[in-house]
Amino acid sequence: MLNVGIVGVSGYTGMELVRILHGHPGVQLTYATSRSWAGKKIGNAIPHLAKSLELVLSKFDAADAADKAEFFFVCLPHGESMETVGILREAGSKVVDLSADFRFNDSSGYEKWYGTHTRIDLLSEAVYGMPELNREKILAADLVANPGCYPTSVILGLAPLLAQGMVDPGSIVVDSKSGVSGAGRLPGPGFHFPEIFGNFSAYNIAGQHRHIGEMEQELSSLAGVDVRITFSPHLLPVSRGILSTIYVRPSAGFNESKLFSAFLEYYREEPFVRVSGPDDILPSLKDVRGTNFCWIGPRLDTRTGTVVIVSCIDNLVKGASGQAVQNMNLMMGFPETTGIQQTALHP
Amino acid sequence: MLNVGIVGVSGYTGMELVRILHGHPGVQLTYATSRSWAGKKIGNAIPHLAKSLELVLSKFDAADAADKAEFFFVCLPHGESMETVGILREAGSKVVDLSADFRFNDSSGYEKWYGTHTRIDLLSEAVYGMPELNREKILAADLVANPGCYPTSVILGLAPLLAQGMVDPGSIVVDSKSGVSGAGRLPGPGFHFPEIFGNFSAYNIAGQHRHIGEMEQELSSLAGVDVRITFSPHLLPVSRGILSTIYVRPSAGFNESKLFSAFLEYYREEPFVRVSGPDDILPSLKDVRGTNFCWIGPRLDTRTGTVVIVSCIDNLVKGASGQAVQNMNLMMGFPETTGIQQTALHP
Amino acid sequence: MLNVGIVGVSGYTGMELVRILHGHPGVQLTYATSRSWAGKKIGNAIPHLAKSLELVLSKFDAADAADKAEFFFVCLPHGESMETVGILREAGSKVVDLSADFRFNDSSGYEKWYGTHTRIDLLSEAVYGMPELNREKILAADLVANPGCYPTSVILGLAPLLAQGMVDPGSIVVDSKSGVSGAGRLPGPGFHFPEIFGNFSAYNIAGQHRHIGEMEQELSSLAGVDVRITFSPHLLPVSRGILSTIYVRPSAGFNESKLFSAFLEYYREEPFVRVSGPDDILPSLKDVRGTNFCWIGPRLDTRTGTVVIVSCIDNLVKGASGQAVQNMNLMMGFPETTGIQQTALHP
Amino acid sequence: MLNVGIVGVSGYTGMELVRILHGHPGVQLTYATSRSWAGKKIGNAIPHLAKSLELVLSKFDAADAADKAEFFFVCLPHGESMETVGILREAGSKVVDLSADFRFNDSSGYEKWYGTHTRIDLLSEAVYGMPELNREKILAADLVANPGCYPTSVILGLAPLLAQGMVDPGSIVVDSKSGVSGAGRLPGPGFHFPEIFGNFSAYNIAGQHRHIGEMEQELSSLAGVDVRITFSPHLLPVSRGILSTIYVRPSAGFNESKLFSAFLEYYREEPFVRVSGPDDILPSLKDVRGTNFCWIGPRLDTRTGTVVIVSCIDNLVKGASGQAVQNMNLMMGFPETTGIQQTALHP
Repeated sequence: MLNVGIVGVSGYTGMELVRILHGHPGVQLTYATSRSWAGKKIGNAIPHLAKSLELVLSKFDAADAADKAEFFFVCLPHGESMETVGILREAGSKVVDLSADFRFNDSSGYEKWYGTHTRIDLLSEAVYGMPELNREKILAADLVANPGCYPTSVILGLAPLLAQGMVDPGSIVVDSKSGVSGAGRLPGPGFHFPEIFGNFSAYNIAGQHRHIGEMEQELSSLAGVDVRITFSPHLLPVSRGILSTIYVRPSAGFNESKLFSAFLEYYREEPFVRVSGPDDILPSLKDVRGTNFCWIGPRLDTRTGTVVIVSCIDNLVKGASGQAVQNMNLMMGFPETTGIQQTALHP
Repeated sequence: MLNVGIVGVSGYTGMELVRILHGHPGVQLTYATSRSWAGKKIGNAIPHLAKSLELVLSKFDAADAADKAEFFFVCLPHGESMETVGILREAGSKVVDLSADFRFNDSSGYEKWYGTHTRIDLLSEAVYGMPELNREKILAADLVANPGCYPTSVILGLAPLLAQGMVDPGSIVVDSKSGVSGAGRLPGPGFHFPEIFGNFSAYNIAGQHRHIGEMEQELSSLAGVDVRITFSPHLLPVSRGILSTIYVRPSAGFNESKLFSAFLEYYREEPFVRVSGPDDILPSLKDVRGTNFCWIGPRLDTRTGTVVIVSCIDNLVKGASGQAVQNMNLMMGFPETTGIQQTALHP
Repeated sequence: MLNVGIVGVSGYTGMELVRILHGHPGVQLTYATSRSWAGKKIGNAIPHLAKSLELVLSKFDAADAADKAEFFFVCLPHGESMETVGILREAGSKVVDLSADFRFNDSSGYEKWYGTHTRIDLLSEAVYGMPELNREKILAADLVANPGCYPTSVILGLAPLLAQGMVDPGSIVVDSKSGVSGAGRLPGPGFHFPEIFGNFSAYNIAGQHRHIGEMEQELSSLAGVDVRITFSPHLLPVSRGILSTIYVRPSAGFNESKLFSAFLEYYREEPFVRVSGPDDILPSLKDVRGTNFCWIGPRLDTRTGTVVIVSCIDNLVKGASGQAVQNMNLMMGFPETTGIQQTALHP
Repeated sequence: MLNVGIVGVSGYTGMELVRILHGHPGVQLTYATSRSWAGKKIGNAIPHLAKSLELVLSKFDAADAADKAEFFFVCLPHGESMETVGILREAGSKVVDLSADFRFNDSSGYEKWYGTHTRIDLLSEAVYGMPELNREKILAADLVANPGCYPTSVILGLAPLLAQGMVDPGSIVVDSKSGVSGAGRLPGPGFHFPEIFGNFSAYNIAGQHRHIGEMEQELSSLAGVDVRITFSPHLLPVSRGILSTIYVRPSAGFNESKLFSAFLEYYREEPFVRVSGPDDILPSLKDVRGTNFCWIGPRLDTRTGTVVIVSCIDNLVKGASGQAVQNMNLMMGFPETTGIQQTALHP
C-alpha cells in the first residue's frame, strides 16, 4: 500500500484526486493539506466525501509530510507550487505537480507567460507528464509536471499529424470550450451562477491565454519546427469538460484515408485515447464525463481542404487529476490504468 | 465470476447498470437485450461505452438468455416486465426487476395504480428490495422488486420515525423534486431541452402519481397503521437526483434530541444511508451524484412543531440501478457494497 | 415625462429596473447611483445595456438626487436602505423601497428578524406594496415598501382562502424554490457556478428564513388571526423564478368547486394574477419568465383532504422590480400596467 | 393598425413572433395557423401566452387568410413554405418567409443544399432580408426571405472586412455555437433534456451544414469573388443564442486600428449592430438574450497575424423573428426599430 499525500486538497483538482484515489486499490491517502480548512476532517471540508474518510487536514509541514507519505500530488497555484515541490524533492519524495511551474523546458518559456521561476534547478529533472508522448521518461521520473487541461486536449488532437509531418504547422487554429471548473474553486463575479447560466463567452482570445506557451512548446517538439497557434478559449455553462475544435491545413497528397490511418496507428496501443473513425459518431462531453479518456474525432472538409479535429476530455480527469494518477501509476510501478478505468457518468 | 444479463439495456436504468457492473469485480455482463438496437455492439448503441465492451445486443429469447447468464436485471416498462420475469423465473434464474410489476404485496394494489396483473402467482415470492427494511428476506430471495426512485427517498426519510411511532402518520406531506432522467430516455414534448432549461414545474400533484401506492404500502407496514400521504412531484432542470422535503407532525413529548437519536440509531449499521446531524450541513444533490447513498437531514421547526426531513438520492443509482446491484450482492453472496462504493462526482 | 432615480443600480433589482423603465413610455431615468461604479456610464457598468443609455453613475448625494429626479427606487441592502429613504422623504420625494426596511407594521417585527431600526418614524407612513391587497393605500402613498420575492408568491397564493376563512390557518406548509438571482449579485462560495450547476438544495429550513416575519404579518392580517407557517426555501439551478408549493387543510364543507371559485372571484379584476382552472395546465417558471404575472394553480387532493397550491412568479419582476414599477404607476397616476405588459420570454 | 397573420405559429419562431408582435404598437395579430392545434385558442396552445390573446388557431386556408390579414409571416419548414408563400403572393399579400426557400438567388443554390424548388418564378422577386446589407431593396420588396440564424451572425461578423477587401476570402474558418431552440420545437433523441444537459457537441462539421450555401452566396457577393468557408456548428446546452468565432487572415498592411475603423464605420448608422471596441469587453450571449442586436467583437492576434471576430445574436430574435419584424417594419413603413427595442433579459 502506497502512502500518498495531497498538498492543496481544497481546490477542484485536489478534491478530484481524493475521489479517484478513493477507488485505487494500491494507495491510501495519508496526508492532505489545506490552509483554510486545517484541523477539519476531510469529510467536513468536502461534504460529499463526509464519512468516507477520517483524515484530518493540516497546514503543509515538510517533516510531517515526509513522515506521513512517500508520494505527493501538489495542487497549489502556479508560482506557489515550485517551492513546495522543491522541499518535497529535497526530502526524496516523488512528486506529480499539477501547476504550470515545471511544464516548461527552460525558465524563459515560463517567465514569458507566468513570471519569475525560483527553482530553475529542477526544470531539467521534470518530465512533461503526457504518457502518450513521454511514457518512457515518466517511468523513470521523480518529478512529473502534469499537463494543463486545454493543452491535453489540443496536443493529443494534433500529435499524429504533426509528428508525421502531414500538416502545415503554421496554419493551426484552435477553438476550445471549457466547463467552469477549469477556472478553479474561488468565487468571483465572472463565475457567479447567474452570470454563467444560459451564457456562453469567449475570453483571452487573440494570443492572451497562458496555456499557449505550453502548447507551442510541445507542438513544436512534435513537429520539429517552431509552431505558433491561434487559440481561442471559451467558457461553457457546464461544470466539467473541454471540447477543442482544431483546424489545420494538410500537406499535399493528403486524403481522408491517410487522416484516419494517422490517428488509428498513432494511438493503437493507448489505453486512454479513443479515435472516432469515419463511421463513428463524433465524441462529445457526455462521452468522457468522469473518465480519463481523450476522445478524438478527426474529419476532412474536402470542400475547403481543411482538417477539422474534435478532441474531448474531462478537464478534471484526463485534463488534471486522472492524468496525474496515470503518471503516478507509471512512476510507482502500478499498471497504468489502475483506478482510472471508470466509464462515463451519463446522463 | 457471475454471468449476468440485462433485459432492456437501452433505457437509462439499463445503461446505468452497464456502467456500474463494469466496475464490479465479481460479475461479467454476458447478455443484454434491446429491441431497437439488436445486432449492434453495446458500445455502438451506447456511445460513451464504445470500445469498453464487445458484447452484441440481441432481442430477448428465453433459451438464449438461460444459456448466457445466471442472474438477470429486468429493465422493461411496467406491464411488460411481468411476463419476461415469469419466463426467467421458470427457467430457474434469479431476478431483480426494476419495474413496478412486483412491488405490491397483492394484485389489488397494483391494479389500482397500474393495471391488470398477469403473473399474480409470483407476487408472493417477490421481495420489496430495500435492504434497509428487508435485508434478511432479500438474502433468501429469488425475485426482488427493486423500489421506485421517489419511494426510496421518501421511505428511507420516514422509516425511523414511523417505525418507532414518533409521528402522526396522518400528517405526512411530501414535496419531491426529481431530475429528468427519472422520466426515462424516450423523447417527448415535455422533455425537449428548451422546454426544461431554466424551467421548474410541478406535475401529477394532488394524489395523481403512481408511486403513491408503493409508498403508502411500505409506510403503512412500517407504521402498523394505514398511512395516506400528500405527494407533490416536481421536475428539476438537471439530469440526475431526487431531493424530497418531507413534513410530518411529531407525537407529544418529541424534541430535537429524540429526532436525531431516532435517525442515527436506526441507520447506525447501514452502509448506504448517511444522516446529517445537528451540526452538519444539509445534504444536496451534488453530495450523492453518481453514488449509492441516501443522505438524510432531519430538522425540527420549533416555531410550528413540524418535523422537516430532507432526503437525497441519485435516482439512477440508489433510486434504481445501484440499489439493484446492492440487491444482487445480497442475493448472490457478494459483500453488500461491492461495486457501488464510488464517492460523488462533484463538481 | 417623470424623472426617475435608482439608488443602488448595480444589483440585480437595480439592473432589472433599468431594463423595465427603458420600455416605460412615461418616465426617463435621470439619476442612478453605484458606489463601486461611480463615474462610469451605465452602459459600461451593465454591459448588456451598453450604448442604450448615456447616463453616468454617481455616488448618492441628497442634493444631487433631489435635483435630478422626482421619484426614487431604492435598491440598497436592508439596514442601509432606511437612512437613504429617510433623506429622500425629507426632501419630499416619493419612494419605492425594495429592501425589507419598511415592510413591517412596527419595529418589533423588523427587529425580530433583521435588527435595529433607526427610522421607526417612517413605518406608519409606509404602505406594504402589494397592489392586490393594498391598492387604495398605494394610490395615496408617498413611501411604498416593495414586498419580498418569496412573500409575493406565498401571500398571493393563500390570500383568497385566508381572506374568506376557508382554511385552517394553523396548517400551512410552504415549500418554495427560487432561482439564484434571488440571492443577489455578490459572488460567494455557495453561488459559484460549479457548486450550483446540476445541484439542488434546501437552506434555512425549520423556521430560519427572514421572509417568514413578513409573510406571517400579511397572512395574519388576511386571516384575522395569528398565523404561523412552516417555510422551506430551496435553491434552484436557474437564474430566475420562484415556484412555491403550498399545503393547507380546508375547513369543513370545502370542495373543488369552492376552491376554484374562491381564486377566480378574488382575482377577477387583477391585471397581473392568473389562475389556472381545473382544465388548465399548472403554471411553471417558463410561463412567467420576464413577466410581472403571478400565476396560481390551486388543486384539492381529495385522497387526503389537502389543498395544494402552486404559485409562480419571476422573482426579479413581480417579485421585485416589476412590482416596484406597478407601485410607481399607482403612486404617480400612470395606468397600472404601463411598461410591464411583456409576455414570457420562452424558450 | 396593420392586420398580420402567422402561418405555422406553433414552432419557436412562430411563438417568438407572437411575443414580439404583442408589444408592437402598429400591428394586431388577426390570423394564425397550426395544423396540430387548429381550433384551440392561441393561449391554450402556447401556455405562457394564455389569457393575453383570444385568437383561435386554424388550418391554413387561402381565402380565410386573405380575408383576415394583409401581411404574413410564414414559419413553415423549408420545402413546405414555398407553395404557401406562392399562394399568399398571388393573393397580393406581402410576406416575410422565415424558411430557407427564398434565400437563394437561383434554384441551383437551393437545390444543391435543400432539394427541388417548385416556385422558381418567385426567386427573382425575393429579397434577402438582412437590412444591414439590403435595406433599400427591402423597403421596396413584397417578398422577403428572412436570413438563417447562423448566417446572420456570420455575415454581419465578416461584412466590413470582405466588403472592403481587407482579408483573404480563402482563409475563413467559422466556429459557431448555437442554443438548442435553433433545432426547432420537435422532440427527438438528440434534443432530449438529459442528453443535452451538461453536454456540448459538434455536428455536421467538415462541410455538411446547409447554411453554408446561404453564407457563401452572401459572402461572395460582399467580397466580389467566390468564397468558400470552413464551417463547424456546435450545440450549446442553453435555449437561446448564437456565438460565432470567426477566423480570417488579413491582407498586407493590416493593423488593429484599421480593424476597428472598418467595423465602426461600416455599422455607424445601424440601429441593431453593436461593435465592441478595443477597450470594451467582448460580447457574450447574455448581452443579446431577448434582443434584436448583433454584437460584434473583432480582435487581431498579432502573434499569428489572424483576425478573430466574436459575433453574438439571439437566434430567435435577430436570427429569426426579430429580424423578420425589422423587415416588416421596413416593408410597411414603420420606423425600423418599432417593437424590437427591448434590452437584454439578464440574468
